[in-house]
Amino acid sequence: MPPPVSSVLAVRHQRVRQSLDSSLDALVVTTPANIRYLSNHAGSAGTLVLTADAVHLMVDFRYVAAVAAVQESPFACPTLRVWPVPASYDEALLECLKTIGVKTAGFEGAHLTVARHEWLVTESSARALGVTFRSTSRLVEAARVVKDATEIGSLRDAAARLTQVVDRALGAVRAGETERAVTGAIEAALRKAGYERPAFDTIVASGPNAALPHHHPNQRVLAAGDLVVLDFGGVLDGYCCDLTRTVSIGAPSPQARQVYDAVHDAQRAAIAAVRPGIDTAAVDAAARSVLDSRGLGEAFGHGTGHGLGLDVHEEPRIARPRPDAPAVPLEPGMVFTIEPGAYLPGWGGVRIEDDVLVTATGCEVLTSAPRELLAL
Amino acid sequence: MPPPVSSVLAVRHQRVRQSLDSSLDALVVTTPANIRYLSNHAGSAGTLVLTADAVHLMVDFRYVAAVAAVQESPFACPTLRVWPVPASYDEALLECLKTIGVKTAGFEGAHLTVARHEWLVTESSARALGVTFRSTSRLVEAARVVKDATEIGSLRDAAARLTQVVDRALGAVRAGETERAVTGAIEAALRKAGYERPAFDTIVASGPNAALPHHHPNQRVLAAGDLVVLDFGGVLDGYCCDLTRTVSIGAPSPQARQVYDAVHDAQRAAIAAVRPGIDTAAVDAAARSVLDSRGLGEAFGHGTGHGLGLDVHEEPRIARPRPDAPAVPLEPGMVFTIEPGAYLPGWGGVRIEDDVLVTATGCEVLTSAPRELLAL
Repeated sequence: MPPPVSSVLAVRHQRVRQSLDSSLDALVVTTPANIRYLSNHAGSAGTLVLTADAVHLMVDFRYVAAVAAVQESPFACPTLRVWPVPASYDEALLECLKTIGVKTAGFEGAHLTVARHEWLVTESSARALGVTFRSTSRLVEAARVVKDATEIGSLRDAAARLTQVVDRALGAVRAGETERAVTGAIEAALRKAGYERPAFDTIVASGPNAALPHHHPNQRVLAAGDLVVLDFGGVLDGYCCDLTRTVSIGAPSPQARQVYDAVHDAQRAAIAAVRPGIDTAAVDAAARSVLDSRGLGEAFGHGTGHGLGLDVHEEPRIARPRPDAPAVPLEPGMVFTIEPGAYLPGWGGVRIEDDVLVTATGCEVLTSAPRELLAL
Repeated sequence: MPPPVSSVLAVRHQRVRQSLDSSLDALVVTTPANIRYLSNHAGSAGTLVLTADAVHLMVDFRYVAAVAAVQESPFACPTLRVWPVPASYDEALLECLKTIGVKTAGFEGAHLTVARHEWLVTESSARALGVTFRSTSRLVEAARVVKDATEIGSLRDAAARLTQVVDRALGAVRAGETERAVTGAIEAALRKAGYERPAFDTIVASGPNAALPHHHPNQRVLAAGDLVVLDFGGVLDGYCCDLTRTVSIGAPSPQARQVYDAVHDAQRAAIAAVRPGIDTAAVDAAARSVLDSRGLGEAFGHGTGHGLGLDVHEEPRIARPRPDAPAVPLEPGMVFTIEPGAYLPGWGGVRIEDDVLVTATGCEVLTSAPRELLAL
């Protein structure tokens, strides 16, 4: 899928402007994924200033040519003004705010560090710029949580290509191979499928290692009787997908089959619960109650899922609510994982994960691969 | 190389404690690489509190088993107390500070966000904990800039293995291949050489793309007459290495040879300048003056190098000094890249990069691969 065209970016700008407190002249955006969302600038560095009628982008020498090339394409960011950064991004930001006459600037409190904030406040005061900085929360993230048609196209394509990666991954899993060798085969398959890079560090966790949800693949050799958790994803056009399958080397033990069936049923229940209006906590509870009823509630120590988009972990959070992260109602256009698991220290574990898109009436499962327990 | 043993960690704790302002009861460490440096905990999440006589580590469910395993090995963190995090890291931090009686806590201003800081200050006040938070700068980073023997062992091993990756990379570069295919071959070679993962997004930049120092490899097909910049590195035991070579597809043009020779001479001059006592700006100037004298000063828009360690970009910065980043004198045990380049928009570019360790009398070049212009 191509990136969003200029008119799509203009809609995003308007959505964020509408959520800006009217006392703010501008929003200073420093989070890289938010900058990309608003401008198509995908570099690792940049600062963006969104005002009522323009988008100002500060980039250093490394990115000036790339930004200029985008600006001559259908994917140009409308009303963009580029500010080359000779040395320090925050120096350039103060210069920009002074030149365009911003007096009250919002910034992203969840990204700007205390040290950068101190510097901006101290320097703008020392230079008598008269700029006030105010912390804001989730302004661009709130727009990003419901995907637009361009994003849904990218996410659908990213998720669909995982099917061929599953095929190759299963082909690489056999007794005698190391976790690292299987990881290498999966990452080669991701690249062959056209992904820019893995979306996160691939997990291959075998035997007792499968009890560690975030295990780093090592030289352990797969052996008959192992359950093996395979968790991987890729980035396509900047958008992330994420899938997990658990397979058995040789015939699974009765306990392995029991745990697997419980996790599989939990995933089915959570997917069946997804529809507009239901809240994130209810989807989590659908999975959790199945595992609770099978005596595996304690073994499921993480949330049921996380949003997918330009970040591999973003909103919404499909989990038990917390004071700082309350449940939110699902809306059509949200995309997230459903990935219950059960982990028994010393024994092993099971996780099954797919990606879903909330539709007008329920959900579309974007990933496609067999979910039965395979014995390889 | 194995990770640092307990006695090495104890030395690191003491070095950081000695740099702590005496008004602080504790340092709250949130930067992941700094947490790993002080504790051997390599997870993506965690909060560490260093006090005068102990190390407190907050980790969530995903990491409790892994930390317990390390604590039963020779690589255990001495005086460690583990605090499981049921939900929020910052909740757990306040609970820890309250329980151990910390009244004045330093935090890492370059890592903690404005939003997290606001929450900690507001909540500790609302709960009448009587904790004061003070921003600190570079306390762990200052210790990390001079590597200890364990780190030098890891960095030397990481850099040495790049030789075999260069061999395979050169084998993959030929007319008719895409940049992405060459990238795939390099990343497969990195894994085969034993690296945990690439240290950064591999760069394969051919023909006019070579004028973009941070080009993302795409479907461009390599053709006779191209210069191709290959920039890659791997992570081994958590430590990063980084190498660049530029090669020619077929015989290089006279201009290509001229630019290449200038960059090669600039790199040689910078490496020859490295020794204890000389400052970082002088090493940068050694490379820059060669390129200036060949009319390529404007074409060299980035710094000459960057430190290597747990991060692929860390201190020292080998570049022109800035008000916020002054020159520093080199000390034995510092490890950094030397990577001058020249970029001519529309035409292409050249970069040559090796990794060096400052020794008692000069430097040791840790990477080993031919530096002559190869025509493939």
